[in-house]
Amino acid sequence: MRRGTNLLAVGGFNQAVVLDLIRRAPDGLSRVELARASGLSPQTIGNVVRRLLDDEVVLETGKQVNGRGKPRTILRLDPRGGYAIGVHLDPALISFVLTDLDGAVVARRIHRTPVAVSPTQVLDAIEQAIESLLAEASATLEVPRERVLGVGIAAPGPIDRERGVVDDPPLLRGWSEVPLRDDLARRLGMPVVLEKDVTAAAAAELWGQTGHDGDDFAFFYYGSGVGLGIVLDHAVVRGASANPGDIGHTIVRDSSEGGVPCGCGRTGCLGEQTSPLRLVQRAAGGKRDSGGAAAAGGAEPLGAAPAGPALDDPRELFDSFGALADRAEAGEPVAVALIEALADDVATALVRFADLLDVDRIVCGGPFWQPVERLLLERVERAVRTSPALVTPHPVRIVSSAAGADVTAVGAACQVLDALYSPRPANLLLAAQA
Amino acid sequence: MRRGTNLLAVGGFNQAVVLDLIRRAPDGLSRVELARASGLSPQTIGNVVRRLLDDEVVLETGKQVNGRGKPRTILRLDPRGGYAIGVHLDPALISFVLTDLDGAVVARRIHRTPVAVSPTQVLDAIEQAIESLLAEASATLEVPRERVLGVGIAAPGPIDRERGVVDDPPLLRGWSEVPLRDDLARRLGMPVVLEKDVTAAAAAELWGQTGHDGDDFAFFYYGSGVGLGIVLDHAVVRGASANPGDIGHTIVRDSSEGGVPCGCGRTGCLGEQTSPLRLVQRAAGGKRDSGGAAAAGGAEPLGAAPAGPALDDPRELFDSFGALADRAEAGEPVAVALIEALADDVATALVRFADLLDVDRIVCGGPFWQPVERLLLERVERAVRTSPALVTPHPVRIVSSAAGADVTAVGAACQVLDALYSPRPANLLLAAQA
Repeated sequence: MRRGTNLLAVGGFNQAVVLDLIRRAPDGLSRVELARASGLSPQTIGNVVRRLLDDEVVLETGKQVNGRGKPRTILRLDPRGGYAIGVHLDPALISFVLTDLDGAVVARRIHRTPVAVSPTQVLDAIEQAIESLLAEASATLEVPRERVLGVGIAAPGPIDRERGVVDDPPLLRGWSEVPLRDDLARRLGMPVVLEKDVTAAAAAELWGQTGHDGDDFAFFYYGSGVGLGIVLDHAVVRGASANPGDIGHTIVRDSSEGGVPCGCGRTGCLGEQTSPLRLVQRAAGGKRDSGGAAAAGGAEPLGAAPAGPALDDPRELFDSFGALADRAEAGEPVAVALIEALADDVATALVRFADLLDVDRIVCGGPFWQPVERLLLERVERAVRTSPALVTPHPVRIVSSAAGADVTAVGAACQVLDALYSPRPANLLLAAQA
Repeated sequence: MRRGTNLLAVGGFNQAVVLDLIRRAPDGLSRVELARASGLSPQTIGNVVRRLLDDEVVLETGKQVNGRGKPRTILRLDPRGGYAIGVHLDPALISFVLTDLDGAVVARRIHRTPVAVSPTQVLDAIEQAIESLLAEASATLEVPRERVLGVGIAAPGPIDRERGVVDDPPLLRGWSEVPLRDDLARRLGMPVVLEKDVTAAAAAELWGQTGHDGDDFAFFYYGSGVGLGIVLDHAVVRGASANPGDIGHTIVRDSSEGGVPCGCGRTGCLGEQTSPLRLVQRAAGGKRDSGGAAAAGGAEPLGAAPAGPALDDPRELFDSFGALADRAEAGEPVAVALIEALADDVATALVRFADLLDVDRIVCGGPFWQPVERLLLERVERAVRTSPALVTPHPVRIVSSAAGADVTAVGAACQVLDALYSPRPANLLLAAQA
């Protein structure tokens, strides 16, 4: 059941709209331009701007002269009005960013995820890294700790977003019912928000996009697992439990085309086909299997894969995957075949998602996308474009994330900024009555 | 780019919220209860209610006495305040409904879709049926034509919703660039809105649901083709071009499990696996193929299917499909195997959609769902529930549409009512500046 809009919420919504307009105008905007662009009355604009100036979130910077009219004061976002910390907890790497109010990264660091330790020890490492990032920001960037609005942390799902709990992600061993959000909030003494990794990545892309992009897109996330972030009507889809985007069991390859068995009992599931671990192991196995590019029915189950590097350590997996990309780039046939099959499998899945969601743009990113981007992007784009299964009546653009390697950590930071000034109409609806 | 909320839009939004609350309260609501439930001020409620009474959309019906306080006037929707016509153009059947302001069907009729005729002749038939429905409603139900707000028409995709054009649906031969909306509006002299069939079906389900249901669900549409309507945050997803929900090429069955070749070059696509035409042809072929239930690799391509009934006429297909369901219900092994394989294929797809969209409810309906509902629902539900590929951290309910056989036509009518009083927050956002 829905409830009405109260005046306070509308005020907040209008403020968010104005702030968002200012943020997106690189040359700033006058109050008159704001009224025109927002559809709000000059009085409302005046009130909203006064509040934003008081909060030191917006600056008055110079005058604009238009013919003989009164010169207009130009308003710009003050990016130093506030900061947010974003953390991306991946099984292989933990990325940290400090962003300003504009979502621009002002400081970053990357740590290897500690392995074979308890969640508490991982939390120790995260806390230490954030404290050292804050100390550095305070010393070298003059970012006072009290201007840091909070921490967003992106983790593999499933998460319990309401309770701030990470519960048994397949790739984080021993992470059962870990109250990540509250533990971290207590340690740091600031608000923490927890988000699923793929949702955070989509949020970062939405945050950074310009007015030329449409309101809908999907984000193909290639991490230790795969996921699909969905943005519809300019809002990130969170689903019933904040765990959308699970695409690991999307079937993309028939057994007669070399599809490999999946733990679910089916053959050719996207998660298994694109698993960096499987690809690295196949690459190490050399010519015995070209990853499904040619041999019919010749696929071996993962358990019988040829011995590869010891990959209990996800960090080693990350390095081995980079080496596989290098070998493919050098033209080594086994590596090339593996990467080509990877591109085809990704494209097969993306075509189905474009058909289902009617999106005209799919953005690709995530930690394992980076190393193979140059090898994959063009082939995936072509395979999607020419697929007979693509039935949408419009082209589908396949692009790499503009936010690069930081995308998920930036998206986590955006969760903090979002509440401040993302004009999400859903915020207009008060919670249902108990 | 987003724009702000102006006062008029907020008024309209609040009015929609109030009307929706009244509509959903079977015993009516007082102004005090409306203020409490909506979060709006008593003054706002007073103004909105006055407007609704003036428009004869709401009735004052009796008083409620609460202890020693002033008796409260009870407000109820006046369902006779307005009407809408819904049309579902399916390749086999055309369904027509007349609904009141509450979306309740007050009159209906079903026609066989004329075959082997031009779109103009189909439009003639639609116009005639609507005029006769209107004449009957005027005569027997005292529904004056001027109280009919408009016509919603649901058609197979792809549609061009903005231009109101149906363009070459795979199952409507010769329907190339047909300006269905404007032609019909000209003929009838009333507003017409065009919607994709699967979107309309989802809209009907959303319209009819009670406060106990969540804001998100998917609608599995089983017509001459399959589709998935998506409702997120209490709004129907329309995608970039109003053509979402195409799931025909979702891969659900490996060739080693009897998956059949699809025109797209892949094997085991949902559209082909569940095609009523294919199933009826297989059933006619008797024991030669059990539809993938057992024989490995024994599937024949559709072109080589055993001779079945002459199915150029989609109406005959509908009848033959009903006969197949009857045979399965009677326990005939070939028919049972076909229906069981159908249930398994549907379940395989639904699991993937639940994982992707994080929905906790999938509603099933559409013209070909009805005849097999009793055979399919329980098996699909069980297969989804026990699937190792279902990774959402919550159960997923599989239910049949409450709207029954009329669901798509009712959904089309709802598109007309929707503008009147569906509180869709996106309506708050004014169009972007040119």
